[in-house]
Amino acid sequence: MSDLSHGNPINVGLLGLGVVGGGVAAALLEQAEVVAAKVGRPVNLKKVLVRDAARKRDVAVPDSLITTNPEDILSDPDIPLVVEVIGGETPAAQYLKDALQAGKHVVTANKEVMAKRGPELLAVAQSRGVNLLYEASVGGGIPIIGCLGKELVANRFHSVRSIINGTTNYILTRMANDHTDFGLALAEAQERGYAESDPTNDIEGFDAVYKLSILAGLAFHRRVPPESIYREGITRLQPQDFRYARELGYAIKSLAIATEADGAIQARVYPALIPQDNMLAKVDGVYNAVEVEGSLCGRVLIHGRGAGRGPTTSAVVGDLVEIARSLSSGSTPLPSVAPEDTGSVRSIDDLECQYFLRLNIADRPGVLAQIARILGDQNISIASVLQKDANPEAQTAEIVITTHPARELWVQRALQQAEGLEVVQEINSLLRIED
Amino acid sequence: MSDLSHGNPINVGLLGLGVVGGGVAAALLEQAEVVAAKVGRPVNLKKVLVRDAARKRDVAVPDSLITTNPEDILSDPDIPLVVEVIGGETPAAQYLKDALQAGKHVVTANKEVMAKRGPELLAVAQSRGVNLLYEASVGGGIPIIGCLGKELVANRFHSVRSIINGTTNYILTRMANDHTDFGLALAEAQERGYAESDPTNDIEGFDAVYKLSILAGLAFHRRVPPESIYREGITRLQPQDFRYARELGYAIKSLAIATEADGAIQARVYPALIPQDNMLAKVDGVYNAVEVEGSLCGRVLIHGRGAGRGPTTSAVVGDLVEIARSLSSGSTPLPSVAPEDTGSVRSIDDLECQYFLRLNIADRPGVLAQIARILGDQNISIASVLQKDANPEAQTAEIVITTHPARELWVQRALQQAEGLEVVQEINSLLRIED
Repeated sequence: MSDLSHGNPINVGLLGLGVVGGGVAAALLEQAEVVAAKVGRPVNLKKVLVRDAARKRDVAVPDSLITTNPEDILSDPDIPLVVEVIGGETPAAQYLKDALQAGKHVVTANKEVMAKRGPELLAVAQSRGVNLLYEASVGGGIPIIGCLGKELVANRFHSVRSIINGTTNYILTRMANDHTDFGLALAEAQERGYAESDPTNDIEGFDAVYKLSILAGLAFHRRVPPESIYREGITRLQPQDFRYARELGYAIKSLAIATEADGAIQARVYPALIPQDNMLAKVDGVYNAVEVEGSLCGRVLIHGRGAGRGPTTSAVVGDLVEIARSLSSGSTPLPSVAPEDTGSVRSIDDLECQYFLRLNIADRPGVLAQIARILGDQNISIASVLQKDANPEAQTAEIVITTHPARELWVQRALQQAEGLEVVQEINSLLRIED
Repeated sequence: MSDLSHGNPINVGLLGLGVVGGGVAAALLEQAEVVAAKVGRPVNLKKVLVRDAARKRDVAVPDSLITTNPEDILSDPDIPLVVEVIGGETPAAQYLKDALQAGKHVVTANKEVMAKRGPELLAVAQSRGVNLLYEASVGGGIPIIGCLGKELVANRFHSVRSIINGTTNYILTRMANDHTDFGLALAEAQERGYAESDPTNDIEGFDAVYKLSILAGLAFHRRVPPESIYREGITRLQPQDFRYARELGYAIKSLAIATEADGAIQARVYPALIPQDNMLAKVDGVYNAVEVEGSLCGRVLIHGRGAGRGPTTSAVVGDLVEIARSLSSGSTPLPSVAPEDTGSVRSIDDLECQYFLRLNIADRPGVLAQIARILGDQNISIASVLQKDANPEAQTAEIVITTHPARELWVQRALQQAEGLEVVQEINSLLRIED
């Protein structure tokens, strides 16, 4: 451990100097006095790990601080605090583990590592009595992770409902407001830099799954591994879904939801209908929002920018200041606690909610009766039916059915049977109605 | 100071056992194990100050804990942590000061005391090296105070925009949605328990001024005394204002806003127009929301229940756990810092924004020209004019003018002149357009 007596600077090692790393370096180098005032002691950027030392960067980091050898940080006993902003699982996870095992406090912005290996790393932190903070891993500038563990700590949480992927929310906002189809909206998002050239991670929900895994672990103090989270992307949504949803009083958003009831957790990421007057329905464009429901506080929603240099830097530096304040006051920060590895995560089959179904059917008498019978046989009660877009030439029409609360398994079974009907051309949409 | 060695309980003295006090007592008595797990040490409710020991209460607090003598708490060296939920300035402020001077950490839910005497009390806390936390004083379950000082600490803040009085927001929501007039909406709020029998504090904006004073002090690290905040109530709003605002794409909300620019702060509480797609426009009923704009995080908005036993208890217990955790880990919590007493708060005369004006005028040619000339003479440029509700019998009509950004002083001068015109019957509304 470094000398932390009064007035001595707190040395920080920074792993990564990309967009966010640049923001963190700028905060420590250019705002040194402001940070020192907040911490009560100077905070000194001692070493910065980069892959390519020769590369030009927009932050002026003195050459003497730059290294390409991770050991210059991980094995330096004078660095009590390591900040990781490399991203991705490899090699970041190993660096984090080495840093924690060396008794260093760690701040990370890495959602993939925290989702896949967070419980393991938190256990190392706990055993070494150090802190592992990761506010920046979910929701950028939205301070939800800190709030769950600090300001809202008095609560037992029942649910986390969130819009935590800005790319998909931008695409869905465009599709809803401008009746664009998915492909066009995606292309536009890519043009504006909101979607990557390979957008799979975002539009298929993997990114949101990582983040939900982290949030649910914190809210429920339980392991909710990414692979236990049900996942559907947004690629099959069509302009009609938005039109009919709106007629019925709903918006369509890609939601990441985890709920806890009777000790069992259910977690899912999918596009769903939510009532237009719900605050989550009003989250537009690249904004994110996380709503938690607590036993005392009720529903609390935090809305803000989920990504980008500024918001992510805000989160990383917030964590950094928290640890540095503890070091500055001579106390050890309360070590991080790993979520417990107990209880199971329920299958999507057990979900119970209302459903929105859109089907292409033969436009002739008696067809609705056949479908209604199949639903009825599975104990699914119909809430509303809209018959739409009749096509006299093909003698087809589109029907939109909403159900009363029903079990997912039954709905899936009913749709399988409906698919077998000669009069059902295609099942276009199966969407859940949330709230 | 009490003995804080490992395993010994942390004693808490509770001042007040009303609605919130009952919630705090219940958390400490009925959820003792949960609280202990969060703190790392048992937290023991040692004494509870009440006014009337004989009164029936809905929380079972053992008689042995009840006292009517504040000294049983304030002078007890074995109580390191005092929670005040009495409310009102007297005698609460003196109790808080005594507790701090005795070296006790303090948690308070008291907005009036924190607004009027917060800087003084924070200075005492600072000099004694203890903590004074007050999350519950603003926005109930909305964790904005903690976030400004912790999760979002990396930011320099430019503005605080908020809806922080549930009573007025309920009334305005009713007026907007159901075309009710003010009196009816107020009566209904009183019936439902959302407004007090003397509603002055809420509807005239005093409550919001206290809360804004606290938020602005924290955000800008500067004293913003309640008396420096411009204040207008909601009593003069009429159903037409909501109708015309909606036509122009705006909602009307009672906003509490503080902004900082070039070292000068401007703070005001008044009903104002905001664009319908602004998140604050979507805050309905008794909900509250606070939006801060930070140098790194951009706009972050927190939405939740602003009052009531659960949300306020959540905030108080969150603060209590924070201090108890520090005591439990053997470290002294970082002492609170008083805002600096520098710089001035600007007069409302210096405000620059767009305006919404509603006037009753004589319905004859040339009247608009006269009004437009007066506005033009004060450098106020018109953005839109709606002529409405002509009354052929009285030969009057209503006009609604929106302006481009203009200085408040000029607008006030122009309206004074307009009032003098023979063709102007009445100036019904002068509202600011925010954002």
